[in-house]
Amino acid sequence: MEVGFLGLGIMGKAMSMNLLKNGFKVTVWNRTLSKCNELVAHGASIGKTPAEVINKCTITIAMLSDPAAALSVVLDKDGVLEQICGGKGYIDMSTVDPETSFKINEAITSKGGRFLEAPVSGSKQPAETGQLVILAAGDKALYEAAIPAFDILGKKSFFLGQVGNGAKMKLVVNMIMGSMMNAFSEGLTLADRSGLNPHDLLDVLDLGAIANPMFKGKGPAMLQNNYSPAFPLKHQQKDMRLALALGDENSVPMPVAAASNEAFKKARSMGLGDMDFSAVFETLKVIHY
Amino acid sequence: MEVGFLGLGIMGKAMSMNLLKNGFKVTVWNRTLSKCNELVAHGASIGKTPAEVINKCTITIAMLSDPAAALSVVLDKDGVLEQICGGKGYIDMSTVDPETSFKINEAITSKGGRFLEAPVSGSKQPAETGQLVILAAGDKALYEAAIPAFDILGKKSFFLGQVGNGAKMKLVVNMIMGSMMNAFSEGLTLADRSGLNPHDLLDVLDLGAIANPMFKGKGPAMLQNNYSPAFPLKHQQKDMRLALALGDENSVPMPVAAASNEAFKKARSMGLGDMDFSAVFETLKVIHY
Amino acid sequence: MEVGFLGLGIMGKAMSMNLLKNGFKVTVWNRTLSKCNELVAHGASIGKTPAEVINKCTITIAMLSDPAAALSVVLDKDGVLEQICGGKGYIDMSTVDPETSFKINEAITSKGGRFLEAPVSGSKQPAETGQLVILAAGDKALYEAAIPAFDILGKKSFFLGQVGNGAKMKLVVNMIMGSMMNAFSEGLTLADRSGLNPHDLLDVLDLGAIANPMFKGKGPAMLQNNYSPAFPLKHQQKDMRLALALGDENSVPMPVAAASNEAFKKARSMGLGDMDFSAVFETLKVIHY
Amino acid sequence: MEVGFLGLGIMGKAMSMNLLKNGFKVTVWNRTLSKCNELVAHGASIGKTPAEVINKCTITIAMLSDPAAALSVVLDKDGVLEQICGGKGYIDMSTVDPETSFKINEAITSKGGRFLEAPVSGSKQPAETGQLVILAAGDKALYEAAIPAFDILGKKSFFLGQVGNGAKMKLVVNMIMGSMMNAFSEGLTLADRSGLNPHDLLDVLDLGAIANPMFKGKGPAMLQNNYSPAFPLKHQQKDMRLALALGDENSVPMPVAAASNEAFKKARSMGLGDMDFSAVFETLKVIHY
Repeated sequence: MEVGFLGLGIMGKAMSMNLLKNGFKVTVWNRTLSKCNELVAHGASIGKTPAEVINKCTITIAMLSDPAAALSVVLDKDGVLEQICGGKGYIDMSTVDPETSFKINEAITSKGGRFLEAPVSGSKQPAETGQLVILAAGDKALYEAAIPAFDILGKKSFFLGQVGNGAKMKLVVNMIMGSMMNAFSEGLTLADRSGLNPHDLLDVLDLGAIANPMFKGKGPAMLQNNYSPAFPLKHQQKDMRLALALGDENSVPMPVAAASNEAFKKARSMGLGDMDFSAVFETLKVIHY
Repeated sequence: MEVGFLGLGIMGKAMSMNLLKNGFKVTVWNRTLSKCNELVAHGASIGKTPAEVINKCTITIAMLSDPAAALSVVLDKDGVLEQICGGKGYIDMSTVDPETSFKINEAITSKGGRFLEAPVSGSKQPAETGQLVILAAGDKALYEAAIPAFDILGKKSFFLGQVGNGAKMKLVVNMIMGSMMNAFSEGLTLADRSGLNPHDLLDVLDLGAIANPMFKGKGPAMLQNNYSPAFPLKHQQKDMRLALALGDENSVPMPVAAASNEAFKKARSMGLGDMDFSAVFETLKVIHY
Repeated sequence: MEVGFLGLGIMGKAMSMNLLKNGFKVTVWNRTLSKCNELVAHGASIGKTPAEVINKCTITIAMLSDPAAALSVVLDKDGVLEQICGGKGYIDMSTVDPETSFKINEAITSKGGRFLEAPVSGSKQPAETGQLVILAAGDKALYEAAIPAFDILGKKSFFLGQVGNGAKMKLVVNMIMGSMMNAFSEGLTLADRSGLNPHDLLDVLDLGAIANPMFKGKGPAMLQNNYSPAFPLKHQQKDMRLALALGDENSVPMPVAAASNEAFKKARSMGLGDMDFSAVFETLKVIHY
Repeated sequence: MEVGFLGLGIMGKAMSMNLLKNGFKVTVWNRTLSKCNELVAHGASIGKTPAEVINKCTITIAMLSDPAAALSVVLDKDGVLEQICGGKGYIDMSTVDPETSFKINEAITSKGGRFLEAPVSGSKQPAETGQLVILAAGDKALYEAAIPAFDILGKKSFFLGQVGNGAKMKLVVNMIMGSMMNAFSEGLTLADRSGLNPHDLLDVLDLGAIANPMFKGKGPAMLQNNYSPAFPLKHQQKDMRLALALGDENSVPMPVAAASNEAFKKARSMGLGDMDFSAVFETLKVIHY
């Protein structure tokens, strides 16, 4: 099977590599083209523009960093829209707000193309191991055509109905995750400052009702102040903001998510935006004035 | 082995029953003595007062509802203190604040008794199945003597050092759990009100980095507004309050725990204190004015 | 002096009436034209569309309910843009986000018109008594030309520099006001529920360092559950949301504003959006489940 | 008239000085006796212990830093309790929690003494100028006997009923004040970081519905990072904590006070506890990691 792939950041690179390793023909594009080299070394072709990739491939997947990038790749000069047409499908796996997804859907379908939004749950490591959870919504036929690719990229894919629902589901999951990371950071800090061994806390947590892979995976690194980015803090904060905006539209008060969002903003103000989102832990530490 | 057991609430009843079923001789006491009947039917003896239980047993375990009850059982007339003495050990497995634990420790040891605080992580079901996590601190020799009992009551026990550390660890774990429950409730509410199927959210969560037994266990019941109490909300809120007080002592800001605590207080003001702590979910629902 | 006036809601009606009473010739327009009648009875002319008003007047003032309305009046068919041109000035006194203000500025100036944003501090009563505080930014010459009108509408006007700064100043003030209203509501509730007379609290507050017209003016009505709208809660919440978005752009954590915003959202979910923003008081009351 | 005065901190010194200057005979005591010298220079007598002051005076006023100090002065060796008796009155003007006030009341009245709690609203400057607001509760006859002193110390005194109500009223007022200070700090920070002149914000605020002496008095100093302590931050945070505890007892959710309390705790963790409570402003500033 042949697919196009737009966007080779942390996530996109791992995902396109998985497709290549599993026998897909992949044509890649990235804003900074040099990032394509490693994939070319594994057999990928290069498209010089998003339009060129669309022209060449029946199905093209995009994995971009934010709503602005997702829109730009479609709408700008040499973008997806210049070549999309009946018979071609475009799958955006970026995390974007529902409104952005609606705009892209409208643009693609107005040209006769099929559109599927398919944001993922999971960051760098699940992307590398093909263990993402895929939250698809939009064109059902395109979803079905993409299943062979989704089977490689993820351990499970959902079809959630109309465009926007994939984006929303992703935001809800990431909002819960962001609040949990704050709860975890507060617990580790309280343990340490009140005379407990925070490593004991990790062991106790892992035996109880709230044991989860995130605490187990990130806890030891956090206790070493190691925040190498699997999911950058600025993207986590963006998702919290978008989830809060979705709650605002629907009159849902979410006081814990709001408090968590402010902690992530505090972390951004400390220059931690490009570190892993677990760096929100730093906001709780003693800083001598 | 023979032990005394003071306090037969949801937790204490399940725990003393486990000891009985595993061949321990158990002498039980409860403020409302009629609650002892079911245990007597399984072979327990009754002590008419805490003092009588202490007099009869070398090691006595207590599992009481709050700091006031924990203090009262020790210090009041016919209490533990009247009979505790050298050679006897008292293990308080209630969840109390460190200060209460210190007071009990001082009272017991001033009479020559040994004291171990041993609060647990886990609620009704782990209590019934002997899957608690036991957080012991205080007298190391008493800890070692109690291991046969702890092996029946729990899947793992920790010895955490000086008195107060067990209480603190428990508070830290429950604080994280309380914030997670709020994050989960906000996510379920946002999913539902923004047009997603909250059951899909449960499935997605269970496949990702934040999958945990609490979400899996409580989510389906919450979606049916079923809050039969495994861990009563008022006790969860009490633990949040005590954890926040511990943070206050140690100058640890905990904005997410503070927001969660207010949500639990809101739930209490709605009359939900005796329901399961997952009933905090109700605070987010639309209430027509 | 002759001015146009677009928008006759609570604020716009009071303001245009003040201009009329002070000798201005005023041509008014409102989406629902029947709302113009009372002003016509006091000597106003009617413009059938925003374009007609702009065509007739050298300076036109707008006072609209939200950013969408502010944009629509300028950009839609029969809107301001169809008639604005060199030599004409447009003053938007609505409360909008800076981005909306930028869009309107760009549209107006691209046709050669002058633009001034001039949101106000103060609600119904100050509008009626000409005691608004006017926060102008944009075209300095237009500001100076408008001073006779501003002197009638307000007790003080500021020129704050480039377009966007008036909108921002308004958001900052309203954000502080919204948090204060929450602080006040919490205090009144705590007084009442802990056995104090909340009227005594009003007296004590009015004698101290935090005495302010809002507490004095709204307190007695709130204690009678009287929330007749001077500043509708949904508009206050919108301003909190926009202020939080401005903070997000600038990496400013604002945990108290965030908590206040969630309380206003809770109030909206209770159906209180059209009442006065002091109705956030209701979110703290006991609601039997 | 003759009175005793216990405690010569910032507040107590200013208050006892006012009494002296207005013709009262005052016998003072302070834990660090050297602090009495300035008052002796103005005509005060010294008591070497609290008991000695009580013995000498019919009415004794206390102004101490926290509940522990308030209890200690009454109950410790050489304390108030050793000399209090029928015919003597003890007026505690410290800010304490209701529970502390109850304990002191019980101790004093059990010896036949009269007790009045009379915490004040207002800090250093109102103390110096006799402009405090006095929140008295307890013994009505003692309140009436103390009116000549209250008329010098304050601009207004309230009699609020049973012991505990003065303490509660003070906590409620200070809770509102603490949240307002956070709202104000967030506003100043947002203005500055989004390109406005924060001095313009002070001018705008002072013209509007939320103008109040605290913003006017503290704003300019805050913008110069001047936090010389009128009301130390650690005491403000203590009052927030006690107010939240009072809310907890009465099932009152107070999310804005809770968020404010965490900000004050953050400030404490930055070593700002002894500065003025307006130093919470520092928690919002950019701190490079």
